[in-house]
Amino acid sequence: MTLPTNGAASPTIATIAGEVGVSVTTVSKVLNGRADVAPETRARVEASLRRHQYRRRTRRQPVGTAQLDVVFHEYASAWAMEIIRGIDAVTTPADVQIGLSHLDGQHRPDQRWLDGVLARRPLGVLFVLCTVTDAQRHQLERQRIPFVVVDSDSATSAAVPTVGANNWNGGLLATRHLIGLGHRRIAIIAGQRDVLCSQARLAGFRSAHDEAGLPVDPELVRHGNFFVGGGFEHAMELLTGPRRPTAVFAGSDMQSVGVYRAARRLGLRIPDDLSVIGYDNLPVAEWIGPALTTVNQPLRDMAGTATRMLLDLARGVEPATRRIDFVTELVVRESTAEVS
Amino acid sequence: MTLPTNGAASPTIATIAGEVGVSVTTVSKVLNGRADVAPETRARVEASLRRHQYRRRTRRQPVGTAQLDVVFHEYASAWAMEIIRGIDAVTTPADVQIGLSHLDGQHRPDQRWLDGVLARRPLGVLFVLCTVTDAQRHQLERQRIPFVVVDSDSATSAAVPTVGANNWNGGLLATRHLIGLGHRRIAIIAGQRDVLCSQARLAGFRSAHDEAGLPVDPELVRHGNFFVGGGFEHAMELLTGPRRPTAVFAGSDMQSVGVYRAARRLGLRIPDDLSVIGYDNLPVAEWIGPALTTVNQPLRDMAGTATRMLLDLARGVEPATRRIDFVTELVVRESTAEVS
Repeated sequence: MTLPTNGAASPTIATIAGEVGVSVTTVSKVLNGRADVAPETRARVEASLRRHQYRRRTRRQPVGTAQLDVVFHEYASAWAMEIIRGIDAVTTPADVQIGLSHLDGQHRPDQRWLDGVLARRPLGVLFVLCTVTDAQRHQLERQRIPFVVVDSDSATSAAVPTVGANNWNGGLLATRHLIGLGHRRIAIIAGQRDVLCSQARLAGFRSAHDEAGLPVDPELVRHGNFFVGGGFEHAMELLTGPRRPTAVFAGSDMQSVGVYRAARRLGLRIPDDLSVIGYDNLPVAEWIGPALTTVNQPLRDMAGTATRMLLDLARGVEPATRRIDFVTELVVRESTAEVS
Repeated sequence: MTLPTNGAASPTIATIAGEVGVSVTTVSKVLNGRADVAPETRARVEASLRRHQYRRRTRRQPVGTAQLDVVFHEYASAWAMEIIRGIDAVTTPADVQIGLSHLDGQHRPDQRWLDGVLARRPLGVLFVLCTVTDAQRHQLERQRIPFVVVDSDSATSAAVPTVGANNWNGGLLATRHLIGLGHRRIAIIAGQRDVLCSQARLAGFRSAHDEAGLPVDPELVRHGNFFVGGGFEHAMELLTGPRRPTAVFAGSDMQSVGVYRAARRLGLRIPDDLSVIGYDNLPVAEWIGPALTTVNQPLRDMAGTATRMLLDLARGVEPATRRIDFVTELVVRESTAEVS
């Protein structure tokens, strides 16, 4: 991609060096994130860079060499594919390639990954369900490598641009729907405890109970892993216990597939004996039988918006807002019914 | 990735130029795929390069900058994710990044894509369900950018290294299983006509009929697109026709999901009223109800093997064989039963 040059004249490194009273080499070291600069000098150079809104000149790159790094927490099934499709819909027309990596289930990259990014110099980095530490953030900022987080976790600094969805609202909508159908014993299989979106969905579940004046039975609150296996195992426990729930908010579509499997194994019919509600609205929600009632979060739009923000940042354009939350909606299909 | 240097001393460009009696610039032009070299001169230079087994010296690359280009025909659901996981299991330990792109449903890249690859200089290119033209192949070879095709189509030149699975055998096993259960009206929803793996599975279907002395009803031979929608539409037609098949070989697991959907819509029970058999053995085959009988093709192993071949070629090691076909196996689950 050939990035459009920005109108404002950018100062040269020599201008910065002259103003601060250091050598061009020193300014260059600061820009390249090298350690061998005295902290006080570094601070003065960075202040000057900020004052002049210095932007590293974008080298004119040959066709097809512009690349966006995409870092997944892990490659989670069809969910990751939806994100990739959303990114791709923006990068392909812009002639930008996707550089794919994952953190093997970790939520923070290690220094080795950061060294790689600094060497590769992508247009920007898109983090999916993971983010950088403050120290890593400063290194990326110093190198003028912009980044955006999709579906951030709770520890993300307010300075980091993020695109997400209103998970609390999604949890609320799902649970209200079940309460409205007369369910009183509703289980939730949330995602991992340390993932923000999982906490927010659980909070929405509790809020729906609160507004209906219903207690939440702690026995019915479980934490899975957003995969089929987690849904299956918790559902087997919940559905063979002494006081079986009549409905399960499965926290993700993949966990719903696990709940379906457990119900089949136990001879329970959906929705006659058990209502199930998912989260994500992946293609599978429409395919499985009965078709799954779920909360739609527009994953492709989220990823596409984050990618556009990132390409804007890469050409020095500040986005209108650094925090975007998409609206979640309930999609009612065949897996939920009035309590019998 | 730091590539190990190969033992044999490689001649310099000057050696080649001296031997052929041209300038170093001319040799360099040939190596860089430039057009402004007389065909006869080019042929002599290339002959000399081959004779000396000339290999472009690998620049010592900084950590994390080595990249493998992965080109998909298109991003097809969970199937693509399995391939990515297989590649990743080899690239991540080798500290190689995956550069992802797709051809938007085309089977050959255009010149723009090729220009991009020549500019990016990846360690190699992995083509999935697509391949290069002969002219493009020569350009990649001239630039010493190795490539391997996973699941090649029928037009792939014998000179191209490929990793596939025995699709004919898979089609044979699936159909034999159904015939063995007493089915005589068996439909097939194959993939696209122009895809080799789809042709091979259909040939296996025919062979199984031949060996049992059964005719194939042309009405029961359909071509889908390997996606849920194709399976659904053909199944709706097949199952509402005058002489309904008692079994469907659905060509792929995703098409099987479409057949399940059609059966539910029509009130047909699987396997009581209809046996269904898939192909691929994606995770979904185990999740759906009833669990799908299918043909296992080891997608992760196929992708991993292709990736290892590619990394070998990148360091100048000729693989033991340039054609590998993995064995396919029938996995019997709950979606097939004796004809009623």
